[in-house]
Amino acid sequence: MVAIRTARTAWNGPLASGAGQVELSSSNTGTFPVTWADRTADVAASITSPEELIAAAHSSCYSMELSGQIAAAGGTPIALQTTADVSFEPDPAGGWRISKIALTVRGEVEGMDAAGFLQAAETAKKTCPVSKALTGAEITLDAALD
Amino acid sequence: MVAIRTARTAWNGPLASGAGQVELSSSNTGTFPVTWADRTADVAASITSPEELIAAAHSSCYSMELSGQIAAAGGTPIALQTTADVSFEPDPAGGWRISKIALTVRGEVEGMDAAGFLQAAETAKKTCPVSKALTGAEITLDAALD
Repeated sequence: MVAIRTARTAWNGPLASGAGQVELSSSNTGTFPVTWADRTADVAASITSPEELIAAAHSSCYSMELSGQIAAAGGTPIALQTTADVSFEPDPAGGWRISKIALTVRGEVEGMDAAGFLQAAETAKKTCPVSKALTGAEITLDAALD
Repeated sequence: MVAIRTARTAWNGPLASGAGQVELSSSNTGTFPVTWADRTADVAASITSPEELIAAAHSSCYSMELSGQIAAAGGTPIALQTTADVSFEPDPAGGWRISKIALTVRGEVEGMDAAGFLQAAETAKKTCPVSKALTGAEITLDAALD
């Protein structure tokens, strides 16, 4: 049982002056422009970037994993809000790197106290499949009940 | 110099029957539904998933990195097409995992032969910031000039 999901990027030109189009190919839900200048700008423009897409993957995967961990601990997940902030910066070893992913989650849960929620949230940080893949970045977690 | 990019997921309900909305918050370019059932289905439905978003991040980051590596080796990148296929499957250690990311790239380049392109493509696989973050998954590469 393997689910394979595909995306494609068409890139034209040099890094600094070129541009790409990234397509969500499996779902056919969108094609988005990307550029290096916008990717590395202090303030995000209204175009996406690899880091924003990583943030989207991580926040959605983590939310699913936490809903499962809450149920495994005897609680009932009602609503979870997960924010992922992905930091992109020059790598002391050369080039650039994704240095840090900061997860912030607020939860509405039945049948679970604050300590139980925190424990489920810390477990989910480790067991989330995207966390398990992103072992090259530091992942931090701020978790609390709403 | 740190570029921070943010995405958010609002999840409601248990893993199997619940659903989420993942928002590309920094760019404000879209909000997309996600569910566990669609994520793990053999054939992708017309909704995205964490794995498709990882594929989008990796294909776009790799394309940028390769354009830079081609220039560093004395070539001129004209057009690059990168596909990322992300495999999601049960983890022998428990839960699920992103087991493999298969990158396929075809390039149109000036001033560089096939061997030079292959070398730049292999270097970019290692130096791409998303590759450096995704050290928990196996990454493979199929690279050739158009």
